[in-house]
Amino acid sequence: MEQRDRDLIAQIEAIVGPKGLLLGRDVTARPHLSWGRGQCPAKAIVRPGSTSELSQVMALCHRWGQSVVPWGGMSGLVNGAQCEAGDLALSLERMNRIEQLESDAGVMTVQAGAVLQQVQQAAEEAGWQFAVDLGARGSAQIGGMVATNAGGNSVVRYGMMREQVLGLEVVLADGTVLSSLNEMLKNNAGYDLKQMFIGSEGTLGIVTRAVLRLRPRCSSVQTALVALSRFEDVVTLLRRLGGELDGKLTAFEVMWQSHYHCLVAELAKHPAFLPTEYPFYVLVEASGSDPKRDEAHFMTLLESLLSSGTILDAVIAHASEQAAQLWALRDDAESLIKHLGPVAVFDISLPIRTMEAYITQLEQRLAEDYPASRLITFGHLGDGNLHLGIGPVEDKTGVESLVYRSLSEVNGSISAEHGIGLEKKPYLHRSRSEVEIQLMKKLKALLDPKGVLNPGKIF
Amino acid sequence: MEQRDRDLIAQIEAIVGPKGLLLGRDVTARPHLSWGRGQCPAKAIVRPGSTSELSQVMALCHRWGQSVVPWGGMSGLVNGAQCEAGDLALSLERMNRIEQLESDAGVMTVQAGAVLQQVQQAAEEAGWQFAVDLGARGSAQIGGMVATNAGGNSVVRYGMMREQVLGLEVVLADGTVLSSLNEMLKNNAGYDLKQMFIGSEGTLGIVTRAVLRLRPRCSSVQTALVALSRFEDVVTLLRRLGGELDGKLTAFEVMWQSHYHCLVAELAKHPAFLPTEYPFYVLVEASGSDPKRDEAHFMTLLESLLSSGTILDAVIAHASEQAAQLWALRDDAESLIKHLGPVAVFDISLPIRTMEAYITQLEQRLAEDYPASRLITFGHLGDGNLHLGIGPVEDKTGVESLVYRSLSEVNGSISAEHGIGLEKKPYLHRSRSEVEIQLMKKLKALLDPKGVLNPGKIF
Ligand SMILES: Cc1cc2nc3c(=O)[nH]c(=O)nc-3n(C[C@H](O)[C@H](O)[C@H](O)COP(=O)(O)OP(=O)(O)OC[C@H]3O[C@@H](n4cnc5c(N)ncnc54)[C@H](O)[C@@H]3O)c2cc1C
Ligand SMILES: Cc1cc2nc3c(=O)[nH]c(=O)nc-3n(C[C@H](O)[C@H](O)[C@H](O)COP(=O)(O)OP(=O)(O)OC[C@H]3O[C@@H](n4cnc5c(N)ncnc54)[C@H](O)[C@@H]3O)c2cc1C
Repeated sequence: MEQRDRDLIAQIEAIVGPKGLLLGRDVTARPHLSWGRGQCPAKAIVRPGSTSELSQVMALCHRWGQSVVPWGGMSGLVNGAQCEAGDLALSLERMNRIEQLESDAGVMTVQAGAVLQQVQQAAEEAGWQFAVDLGARGSAQIGGMVATNAGGNSVVRYGMMREQVLGLEVVLADGTVLSSLNEMLKNNAGYDLKQMFIGSEGTLGIVTRAVLRLRPRCSSVQTALVALSRFEDVVTLLRRLGGELDGKLTAFEVMWQSHYHCLVAELAKHPAFLPTEYPFYVLVEASGSDPKRDEAHFMTLLESLLSSGTILDAVIAHASEQAAQLWALRDDAESLIKHLGPVAVFDISLPIRTMEAYITQLEQRLAEDYPASRLITFGHLGDGNLHLGIGPVEDKTGVESLVYRSLSEVNGSISAEHGIGLEKKPYLHRSRSEVEIQLMKKLKALLDPKGVLNPGKIF
Repeated sequence: MEQRDRDLIAQIEAIVGPKGLLLGRDVTARPHLSWGRGQCPAKAIVRPGSTSELSQVMALCHRWGQSVVPWGGMSGLVNGAQCEAGDLALSLERMNRIEQLESDAGVMTVQAGAVLQQVQQAAEEAGWQFAVDLGARGSAQIGGMVATNAGGNSVVRYGMMREQVLGLEVVLADGTVLSSLNEMLKNNAGYDLKQMFIGSEGTLGIVTRAVLRLRPRCSSVQTALVALSRFEDVVTLLRRLGGELDGKLTAFEVMWQSHYHCLVAELAKHPAFLPTEYPFYVLVEASGSDPKRDEAHFMTLLESLLSSGTILDAVIAHASEQAAQLWALRDDAESLIKHLGPVAVFDISLPIRTMEAYITQLEQRLAEDYPASRLITFGHLGDGNLHLGIGPVEDKTGVESLVYRSLSEVNGSISAEHGIGLEKKPYLHRSRSEVEIQLMKKLKALLDPKGVLNPGKIF
C-alpha cells in the first residue's frame, strides 16, 4: 500500500474505529460480483457504525478524491457493487437496526443495512407485512433494495420499493446528510428529493435510513396453477382477475410451455401438476383476510373462467405445502440455468400487447442465428416483466444484441427490476434516448461532481 | 408594448399561428390566481398546438431570457400559476387529446392539456377507471395534476398522481424534448427521470404528454358515515378497515365534531344523518366488483365494529343519492368558509399518532392568542392529511405561524397535496431543512439555469 493510502486509511480508522475497517485478506475473502463470485480487490472495506461516521468518511473521501463503492447485501445481479483496485468498499452491514415501528400506522424506520427478512419478521410480529419479497431475502438490505428499486413477486398489488418508501436519509458524495424522514403518505412541500435516490444504484448518494410503509398482513392465501391455450387468454385472465378479485391479486406469474415442459417433463424436477401440452401456464396468487370467504370467491371465479374457456385446466393448492411446491416450480431458475449450459439471462419489460409477437420473433431469429440454443420464457407478466433464459450460448454478446434489438422495436426496457450496474451498461442506449442519458449524466455531475460515488456504473 | 416584446411576440406567432396567441384584453380577461381570482397581467398567453411548437417556443424564450409560466386548468390552490407583468403565460389548453387507450392493459396516453373529467370518462368507457378524483375535475388538466402531484379522496387505495404516471414527455427550459413515454409497471433502466418533474409545479419542465396507469373499474360501492367517541377508536377503525376490507377501502374521511356540528346543527345545511354529539365522524367508502358480496362483507364488518364498541353509531347509504349526500356534507368547504368569516385554510399532513395532541394543542393556542376565532378540522385521515379552517381571522400571518410552528414540532408537512406555489413559499423552511432546500435550488439551477420557468415559485 502506498503512503497516501496508508494515511487515508489511518484517518478513516480514526473515524470508524478498528471494528469499522477490514483490510488485506478480510477484503479479498469477500466476493464483489453477482452470484457471490470474485475476490474483492478494493483497498479496504469500511463499515461505519452510524450515519455520522459514514458522513465523516464520505467528507474525507470527497476531499481526497477517493472512489467509494456502496455495499448492501451483495445480492444484486448486475455487478453494481463491483470494485476496482483503487476503490474503497463501503458496507452498511453494521448499520442494521430497526429503529422504530409505529404499529398503529404501519410505519417502520430502519437503518439501511437492515436485512429484508429481519424487516419482514418485525412487520409480521406487529401484525403488518412488508410488501416486497424476493429470493435473496436473507441477504438483501433495505438500502440496497432502495438503491436498485427492487421488485419481486407482488408488484402487481403493492408496487416496487419506490411505493414502500415514505422517507429517506441519504449521505451525499461530499458527506452532507440529507434527511427527509417523512412518515406521511402525502407530502407535497417542494420537490420530493428522495425519488432521485431510489433506483440510482449508489451513484448519487448512500442511503443510510428509510421510513417504510407497511401493509395490512393477509391471513388467507389462495394459490393456483392454470393452463391456457392462447396468449390472448392470458391477457383476458389478467384483466378478469385484476378486476374481479378486488385488489386481492398478489401474483400473476406466467410460464411459457418452454419453461414448464423443461422443468416438469425433460428434467422431471417437479411434479406434473398439469399435463405439459399447454402453451401457457399461470401461477396465480390472491390474498385477503378471511380464508372461507376468500376461498369461495377464488373458486367461483376460477369456475367461471373454466366454463368460459379462458382457462383450460387448473390445479388449486389446498395447503401451504402445495402452494410452496407451485412456487418452487416457478422459482427454479437454478435447474434451468444448469440445464441450458452456458446461458444468457435477461430481465426485460415490454408492453403486454407486444409480448407474444416479440417472443415468437425472437424464437425465429434465434433459430436462424443460433440454431443450437433454445429460449425459455417466464416472468411477472402482470408487471410487463419477462425473464428469458437462452442457452447453450457461446457468443453471449451476439445473443444480447439480438434480444435487445428486438426489444428497442417495441419500446421495451433492458432492465425491469435488476438495474444496470456494469453488466447492462453497454445496452443502456437501447432503452434510453440520448437526451435521457445526457440528463442522467448531468444529475450525476450535480450530485457527485468529483465522481467518487460508485464510479463507472450505469453509464 | 416595447419593441423588443413586439419582436418576440412576432416570432412566437410565427411558431404557433394566430390561434396560438392571446393578447391584450384576451389576457386580462383571464384569472391567474387561486379560486378564479385576478386579471392576468402577462404580456401574452401562448397556446401551442403540439409538443414541437411548445419546444420551439421554449427554445426562443430561453434564448431571450423570457420568463414563462405554465398554465394547466388553473384550479390550483396555492397561486402556482400566478403571473407578473413581464411573464408569458403558456397554456396547454389546445393540447388536450387522448391519444391512445390500451384497453387490454389499462394504459392511456394523453396530451397534458386533457381535462381530468374527459380522461375519467374515456377510461370508464373502456371498462377501466382513472383513479385520481378531485372537486376540480371539470377544469384540472393531467399536466397540472402531474405538476402538483395531486391527491384527492382515494389516495388511501390508489396513491397520488405519482402512482398513476408510467411515462412522461417533458419540454425542458431550453426547449429540449425529454421523452420518457414508458408504458410498463417496471423499468429500472437508469434513473427514473420522470419522478423529478412530478410535483415540481412547473419549475423544472413543462409536461406535454403522460402515459397513465388505469385501474379496474369498480361496479359496487359501499358508503357509510360512522360516529366515534375517541381518537384512538378512529385509529383502530382505520386499521381494521384497512386490514379486513382486503384493499377495498377507497376513502377514509374524518370530520371532527367541530366540522359536523357546524354544517349540520349551526348552519343546518345538511341532514342530521347522525346526532351531532359525537366527537368524531368518519365517512367510509369501499368499492369492489360484486354488489351482493361486497355489501354483505361491509355490513358484517360494521356490525362487528359496533358490537366491539369501536364505532358508536352508523348510517349506511342504500343508494347512490344517499352516498352523494354524505359526500356533499364532507365536501362542503364553501359553507364553512363563508360561515367562518375571513378564513385561513390549511392543507397539512402529520403522523397519525400525533394528530389528536396536535389539534388539541392548536385549539388551546388559538384560544389564547385569537379568542374570537375557531378551528374546524376534517380531512383524508387515512393519508395523514388534515384540512383546517380557522376564522374569523384578521391576522392571517399570525395564525399561519401558529399552525406551522406546532406542525414543525411533530415533523409534519405544510402541504399535503396542494403544493407550495407562491402562497406557502414563506413557510417552506417549516417542513424542509436547509440542506433539502439547497438541493432543490441546485436542481432548479441545473434544469433551468436562466430561471425562465415559473420563476419565484416554491422557494
Ligand atoms: C436469489 C435472488 C433472487 C432475486 N430476486 C429478485 C427479484 O425478484 N426482484 C428484484 O428486483 N431483484 C431480485 N434480486 C436482486 C437483488 O436481490 C436486488 O437487486 C436487491 O435489491 C439488492 O440488494 P442488496 O442489499 O443485496 O444490494 P447490493 O447487491 O449490495 O447492491 C446493489 C446496488 O445498490 C448499491 N447499494 C447497496 N446498498 C446501498 C446503499 N445503502 N446506498 C446506496 N447504494 C447502495 C450498490 O452499490 C449496487 O449498485 C435477486 C437476487 C438473488 C440473488
Ligand atoms: C374545488 C377544488 C377541489 C380541489 N380538490 C383537490 C384535491 O382533492 N386534491 C388535490 O391535490 N388538489 C385539489 N385541488 C387543487 C387543484 O385542482 C390541483 O392542484 C390540480 O392538480 C391543478 O391542476 P390544474 O391543471 O388546474 O393546474 P394549474 O392550477 O393550472 O397549475 C398548477 C401548477 O402546475 C403548473 N402546471 C400546470 N400545467 C403544467 C404543465 N403542463 N407542465 C408543467 N407545469 C404545469 C402551474 O405552473 C402551477 O404551478 C382542488 C381545487 C379545487 C378548485
